[in-house]
Amino acid sequence: MYSFKNDYSEGAHPNILKALFESNMEQTEGYGEDKYCMAAIKLLKDKLKRSDVDIHMFCGGTQTNLTAISAFLRPHEAVISANTGHVLVHETGAIEATGHKIISIKVADGKLKPEHIQMAIDEHNDEHMVKPKMVYISNPTEIGTIYKKQELEDLYGFCKKSNIILYIEGARLGSAICSKENDIKFSDLPNLADAFYIGGTKNGALLGEALVICSDFLKEDFRYFIKQKGGLLAKGRLIGIQFLELFKDNIYFDLAKHANDMAELLKISISKYGYLFLIDSPTNQIFPIFPNVTINKLEEKYAFFIWKKVDEENSAIRLVTSWATKEYNVKTFIEDLREDSK
Amino acid sequence: MYSFKNDYSEGAHPNILKALFESNMEQTEGYGEDKYCMAAIKLLKDKLKRSDVDIHMFCGGTQTNLTAISAFLRPHEAVISANTGHVLVHETGAIEATGHKIISIKVADGKLKPEHIQMAIDEHNDEHMVKPKMVYISNPTEIGTIYKKQELEDLYGFCKKSNIILYIEGARLGSAICSKENDIKFSDLPNLADAFYIGGTKNGALLGEALVICSDFLKEDFRYFIKQKGGLLAKGRLIGIQFLELFKDNIYFDLAKHANDMAELLKISISKYGYLFLIDSPTNQIFPIFPNVTINKLEEKYAFFIWKKVDEENSAIRLVTSWATKEYNVKTFIEDLREDSK
Amino acid sequence: MYSFKNDYSEGAHPNILKALFESNMEQTEGYGEDKYCMAAIKLLKDKLKRSDVDIHMFCGGTQTNLTAISAFLRPHEAVISANTGHVLVHETGAIEATGHKIISIKVADGKLKPEHIQMAIDEHNDEHMVKPKMVYISNPTEIGTIYKKQELEDLYGFCKKSNIILYIEGARLGSAICSKENDIKFSDLPNLADAFYIGGTKNGALLGEALVICSDFLKEDFRYFIKQKGGLLAKGRLIGIQFLELFKDNIYFDLAKHANDMAELLKISISKYGYLFLIDSPTNQIFPIFPNVTINKLEEKYAFFIWKKVDEENSAIRLVTSWATKEYNVKTFIEDLREDSK
Amino acid sequence: MYSFKNDYSEGAHPNILKALFESNMEQTEGYGEDKYCMAAIKLLKDKLKRSDVDIHMFCGGTQTNLTAISAFLRPHEAVISANTGHVLVHETGAIEATGHKIISIKVADGKLKPEHIQMAIDEHNDEHMVKPKMVYISNPTEIGTIYKKQELEDLYGFCKKSNIILYIEGARLGSAICSKENDIKFSDLPNLADAFYIGGTKNGALLGEALVICSDFLKEDFRYFIKQKGGLLAKGRLIGIQFLELFKDNIYFDLAKHANDMAELLKISISKYGYLFLIDSPTNQIFPIFPNVTINKLEEKYAFFIWKKVDEENSAIRLVTSWATKEYNVKTFIEDLREDSK
Repeated sequence: MYSFKNDYSEGAHPNILKALFESNMEQTEGYGEDKYCMAAIKLLKDKLKRSDVDIHMFCGGTQTNLTAISAFLRPHEAVISANTGHVLVHETGAIEATGHKIISIKVADGKLKPEHIQMAIDEHNDEHMVKPKMVYISNPTEIGTIYKKQELEDLYGFCKKSNIILYIEGARLGSAICSKENDIKFSDLPNLADAFYIGGTKNGALLGEALVICSDFLKEDFRYFIKQKGGLLAKGRLIGIQFLELFKDNIYFDLAKHANDMAELLKISISKYGYLFLIDSPTNQIFPIFPNVTINKLEEKYAFFIWKKVDEENSAIRLVTSWATKEYNVKTFIEDLREDSK
Repeated sequence: MYSFKNDYSEGAHPNILKALFESNMEQTEGYGEDKYCMAAIKLLKDKLKRSDVDIHMFCGGTQTNLTAISAFLRPHEAVISANTGHVLVHETGAIEATGHKIISIKVADGKLKPEHIQMAIDEHNDEHMVKPKMVYISNPTEIGTIYKKQELEDLYGFCKKSNIILYIEGARLGSAICSKENDIKFSDLPNLADAFYIGGTKNGALLGEALVICSDFLKEDFRYFIKQKGGLLAKGRLIGIQFLELFKDNIYFDLAKHANDMAELLKISISKYGYLFLIDSPTNQIFPIFPNVTINKLEEKYAFFIWKKVDEENSAIRLVTSWATKEYNVKTFIEDLREDSK
Repeated sequence: MYSFKNDYSEGAHPNILKALFESNMEQTEGYGEDKYCMAAIKLLKDKLKRSDVDIHMFCGGTQTNLTAISAFLRPHEAVISANTGHVLVHETGAIEATGHKIISIKVADGKLKPEHIQMAIDEHNDEHMVKPKMVYISNPTEIGTIYKKQELEDLYGFCKKSNIILYIEGARLGSAICSKENDIKFSDLPNLADAFYIGGTKNGALLGEALVICSDFLKEDFRYFIKQKGGLLAKGRLIGIQFLELFKDNIYFDLAKHANDMAELLKISISKYGYLFLIDSPTNQIFPIFPNVTINKLEEKYAFFIWKKVDEENSAIRLVTSWATKEYNVKTFIEDLREDSK
Repeated sequence: MYSFKNDYSEGAHPNILKALFESNMEQTEGYGEDKYCMAAIKLLKDKLKRSDVDIHMFCGGTQTNLTAISAFLRPHEAVISANTGHVLVHETGAIEATGHKIISIKVADGKLKPEHIQMAIDEHNDEHMVKPKMVYISNPTEIGTIYKKQELEDLYGFCKKSNIILYIEGARLGSAICSKENDIKFSDLPNLADAFYIGGTKNGALLGEALVICSDFLKEDFRYFIKQKGGLLAKGRLIGIQFLELFKDNIYFDLAKHANDMAELLKISISKYGYLFLIDSPTNQIFPIFPNVTINKLEEKYAFFIWKKVDEENSAIRLVTSWATKEYNVKTFIEDLREDSK
């Protein structure tokens, strides 16, 4: 049984384990103030070409989101999210648990545009309603689509003009940046949002997300919030070491590119067999539509999520590739699909 | 410079790194539903001799505390803690941030007794005040003291009679259990509290605490709370593997015993030189009182916290030993102290 | 300028002022434990034919909602509401501020049906999502429609079967009960929901809502929550006296009937002139569609809300009648409209 | 049975009822935007000699405190309060329920001084602890003592220097201002704190507290918070009318002076009989120490709280006078006490 269920089925890139091993018996400061975290933060700033940003390490995406959002907003302020947004749907109300409403905007492609934000502003016009104050987007989105540079520029420009914070969730940021359709450089990011995070867990780390706070007005006292929400790791070096390894030789991008390549290989082959896709996604998640009988057959050898019923006889499934997906696994899948499709 | 500042200065016990390495490329389920977590939970239940408890894995102590406490209590219910309690002092208001007041009880030895609880109940007698509903204790306490079995039995008996939950924070639980003065068996614990946690981070793990919920009425829907508070790790196996390693050959207790032995070696030698201690602590934290000039001298070679000014010329410092402390480090410290003491 | 903007433009029914005046210099217990509150609660229980319910007095609707909902739910549990729900739209995120997500269900008539609840349950099926645990409905709804008895029976039956709490907001409950289309008796209410509130502010009181908790499992410690949320009035008798006056001679229902009658008078006359309505509402809010030029003209003499643009030349407005609306005011409006319509 | 239990046993000053009666059938705007609220706010600004302050009306003290404090602070920031503080003890954890810790400072006289604040700052020095950001004081304090002008100037000066907000709870502010020992003018108040509230409920209103926000940085979006916490009354005029009545002829101060006079009359007479007082309080609460047998006797005719056991045979009781206390009631009490004391 091979799993295409997600991009966190395996452990970490071997370099990371090696670095953990080598540094293991060194004594360091706790709570993310060690030399590895410092070095990782410096390296990330270099790659982002912005020495003035603040960077904080987290264990996971939900924790990053809830800590950042609750630190950035006052009690009456709300988040605007696409209806597919991870914070809206898949975090067990973590944001509401910190007191903030999420305004849901229905979109087809997972992406927010300035007109959506304007609509939310227009609909919330007095003190009997929450005040829209943050736009939350994911890049890539939860359905694998990505923002083009011009789109992000427009959105961030609109947000700044409207006095609204733009926050980008980047659980799969590597996959967006390494997508063939992408035109955003990694070093563009700090200029395209007030804050964003660089996901490690889904791109080769054991765990770890790096939150980048670009705008000065969001930086103050941020470590207090991490501690209060339970996110300050005693052995913070564990995350610092991993980001250092992932970025020092640009492995981060190599791994993401590999995941994308594997997804594309799947996509091309599946297309060749005449299947359609629910969404046109240029990253490491794809959503082919198969007959239910084919799906049942595939499920004997592969694990994946059935994403959506399309009609009585067909459903879309989600296939996720990762840094750890081997070309062999993809080819076998294609082979098995071909057999099925006969 | 050698550090006695804490018990989380180094990485993990080598067995753990080895196990991470060996399992690295296996595909497993996410979010703590993998075979390693399952095996670790089964093993812990065996060691605790209670198959009916629920066990959940967390990244760190503050997160365990805030998730458990906010899950266990209704909005008007409060926690009773000794004035030294970690939740009260050193978690940036994490518990209050989930909406709950902590009632502080001033005690000399870090330990709560039934009469303290009775006092808190007596002082909170109508709906204009919070309702005391949980007793939070740490074993060992934040100042290194431990509860005897009879003390815990009395406290838990009193709590049950008073319809109050007893929760034990166990960040350094290994050190308590392996203390020479301890008379509580590991398998006694589920019968002495409604819930407690087994600390991994301070006893040889990279990160990880295992929350044990003993009482049925606290178990329902618990995974929802972990997710909501950002504590559900995508690669949950990372913690499962560690607890499996720590407990499969009882390394957990060997490491804790070693830490205690190192502390005792320090204590005996320091006593011999005629120094006194601020607190009589039989675990891996000791609090010797030294002249400030001696402290200044020691600080040139050792890192530690100055705990409390005793008088104009003397202060108590905190020395923490761990699984990673070498006898050589202790002996050198003693040697240096002797030089100083001449 | 006469206002049809809402049903809280005037003060209180004269009987209430008289009773306040007569009782003014009596000394009573504070915080709702006085004889007037006791008598009002007893009277309400009699009218509801259920001596076992718990009744608590509140200052306003938002406070009633936020206190009840946050008392009834555990942190991971969510409320299901129609997309028009007051808690969802017009309470500045009051519910989310207590930590709970509201799941919005799009409906045309403001009313939830069992199939909507089933849908919400189906879409929230594991611990990565909130757990739907309460259905919030308003009767009448925010757009003036009402539930029939069979509808409420079906909904409550479904909720009980699904282990979900049914809570009815009754800011305008009198208007629902006194609607010509209504078939629910006041004394049916405790058998049709786990909790509901009887709105006073919009039906002749200066302020005041009475929360009725019908199901035992929701009753415990409820006064703690009122106090914690700031809703326990020192001079609680202020609300007790008002409910006593409103219910002792059934004035409450007379006032509501009058408001409905005035709305119907408006509706019949407006219909005669050939105008249509946005919604068919049998209570004290009506939503006629007028040409914008007519609206502009009416605005010179009347205050009301423009509810919705219908097309380029027509909009729906909202007209609200109340216990204080005089037939004269209605007739003058109709007269002026007739002039306009010529 | 006459009650000295508190200052909210009766209804409202007759002028208030008269004004409610006269304005009853007028139509006004809702939610505190009516002409009465506007006029009351203007009048208060005039009396305070500061046209730039913001004033908001609330139903009660706990709601004022919880709304103001949660609006003014960020999530990691804490309140410093004397151990007698109402927010700390008697609001069912209302402040903690909004997420904020209260740091308790033990004092004998209910009053905080700069050295207490410095101590709290010193003890909270990194991100593992909350950040002290607001000083909460009551004037008069919960035990009837008052701040002198120099004391408030020192405290506010210290707070400003330390970047800490000073907030004064004024549930009995009238009694403080009208105390014989007081040297603070009503119009001094906006220059002595960042925000404070003027209590109406305990000084002749049916309900109502007026929050005065003096410092610009605390003003933004404040009405959102009132709405979110359930404090925005639909018929907001109810509070506006009352403050207008209380302040237009300075009745507010007359009522408070009367309450103080009645307390002093009690105090002088009780002293003459040779009894001592637990606290020396120059406002409308006094704390005489009587033999338990005397207390039992008095309880047959008077209601009051037994405040504290002093020794086996004596206890302190609390006697509260108000605008409604008649000289006759005081004299009868004194007479009865004299009988007892024979």
